[in-house]
Amino acid sequence: MRLIPPSVSAVAVVAASLSLASASMAAPVTPASVLAEAPAAAWIAPAPEDLLVMDLAGGKRVVIALAPSFAPVHVGNIKALARAHWYDGLWIERVQDNYVVQWGDPTEKKPLPEGVAADPPAEYERSAAGLVVAPHPYRDTFAPATGFVAGWPVAEEDGQAWLTHCYGMVGVGRNNAPSTGSGAELYAIIGHAPRQLDRNIALVGRVLTGIEGMTALPRGGEAMGFYKTEAERLPIVSARLASDLPEADRPRVRVLDTASPAFAAWVKIRANRKDDFYIRPAGAIDLCSVMPPVKEGD
Amino acid sequence: MRLIPPSVSAVAVVAASLSLASASMAAPVTPASVLAEAPAAAWIAPAPEDLLVMDLAGGKRVVIALAPSFAPVHVGNIKALARAHWYDGLWIERVQDNYVVQWGDPTEKKPLPEGVAADPPAEYERSAAGLVVAPHPYRDTFAPATGFVAGWPVAEEDGQAWLTHCYGMVGVGRNNAPSTGSGAELYAIIGHAPRQLDRNIALVGRVLTGIEGMTALPRGGEAMGFYKTEAERLPIVSARLASDLPEADRPRVRVLDTASPAFAAWVKIRANRKDDFYIRPAGAIDLCSVMPPVKEGD
Repeated sequence: MRLIPPSVSAVAVVAASLSLASASMAAPVTPASVLAEAPAAAWIAPAPEDLLVMDLAGGKRVVIALAPSFAPVHVGNIKALARAHWYDGLWIERVQDNYVVQWGDPTEKKPLPEGVAADPPAEYERSAAGLVVAPHPYRDTFAPATGFVAGWPVAEEDGQAWLTHCYGMVGVGRNNAPSTGSGAELYAIIGHAPRQLDRNIALVGRVLTGIEGMTALPRGGEAMGFYKTEAERLPIVSARLASDLPEADRPRVRVLDTASPAFAAWVKIRANRKDDFYIRPAGAIDLCSVMPPVKEGD
Repeated sequence: MRLIPPSVSAVAVVAASLSLASASMAAPVTPASVLAEAPAAAWIAPAPEDLLVMDLAGGKRVVIALAPSFAPVHVGNIKALARAHWYDGLWIERVQDNYVVQWGDPTEKKPLPEGVAADPPAEYERSAAGLVVAPHPYRDTFAPATGFVAGWPVAEEDGQAWLTHCYGMVGVGRNNAPSTGSGAELYAIIGHAPRQLDRNIALVGRVLTGIEGMTALPRGGEAMGFYKTEAERLPIVSARLASDLPEADRPRVRVLDTASPAFAAWVKIRANRKDDFYIRPAGAIDLCSVMPPVKEGD
């Protein structure tokens, strides 16, 4: 069976197995072998109170890491909505190919619980002051500087920093400005990074695991990928913070420390493949092609 | 219903309807309005002999434009395989999230018909001499210059040009070098553009319509997204060149002329949105975010 083009999966479970296979053939250094050799200390478990665990009808689980350091009020809203079980029984209502999956309350009629800001500030960027950025060493089409901050892809300009719309990033649906969105509707990027949305909408997190539970859904037949009928919508069974789940039911997930030598080595080899398959190393890799690897299990 | 983030669909059927809606509100210029105003002459119908029409089990049709000017021997093989009905009864056997869908003969045991080169030359790049390139005006992470040639996204360096691995582009699976792949297995990009594959594998075309028939498929559970069982594979009912189909069954599809002022205006407004939703124009757009718009119907 022809395994070409080779995997670029960032899931170390897969990567490690490939690495072992190739190690036995004394293969050259690959992204998989770099991940397999990363020390345990380089894999960081997100705080349970910053993990949104969404169980969908059909038994799919989507685990989303939240980014309070970039969108504190929006993330506070999402946590309050999860703690109020507010998302339970709502739906994935939009799947637009090569763009977004969107879920929440399309009617905008479900009352928001106490303590949820109906119109948060526009948390589209923040001061770069105090941020420890691991610089991304290759040029970017959209910003003069990019890099990673504690696992988050960021762009920087004029002392401001913002999260970037890479595959799997999660944002807050909003109406036209001045609306910034309450968190009642969320979306995840499921296609080529629409970076032109950066600084126009609040990004609040990233899908760490289970995105295939959303990306493999039928595309919606209405304009912008909305489902035509309620029957097409996929119900959200529950959305909880991991910290509110029983210990045994919490996701076991870790993200490679973007300040670690292992991450820097992984980015470098992703940009400079020279192994059994690759003939010509690209010599570069774009920010959204090196989203921090995720490892499942203990 | 919250229509945010707004569509970036390149399908003019959708775009035009949005444009009409906003025109009635005297909305500013948008990508949709630019497409709606593009003259009929700017929409080019690919030659029927360069369209591969793949009908999948379940009634989904995928229409792929072939690029003989970039990979003549590989495209010649694919045409010969289609004319021999060789793909009929084979399968989509691999769906890896945020990477590729792959189809063909995973066993590599089905004999190739007469006139199919088992090992074509490595058509990974070509001389840029004589190519009329509409330059892409924004910087690229991977190449010093990019642009479009007759509807195809290309990168250029040192007098060479090559097709780029954007969403929807179709390539030829191969084993490790020196194999270049016969066309017996093909893949389409269904995630963030893996540009590091450029010049390492033969790109032969682009999915123009129906990609959602492949992108919404369940992801495979084996390493690299291969399906675990034969039962999971999606059969290819038939793959034909449009020129070999009855006139009435040929796809009606056109691509915006990338040498036209309308395309240049569309790229410019995609990079500089300033309308009811957008607050801060990006001032740039990447090559793979402006794949030439496709229009269906007469």
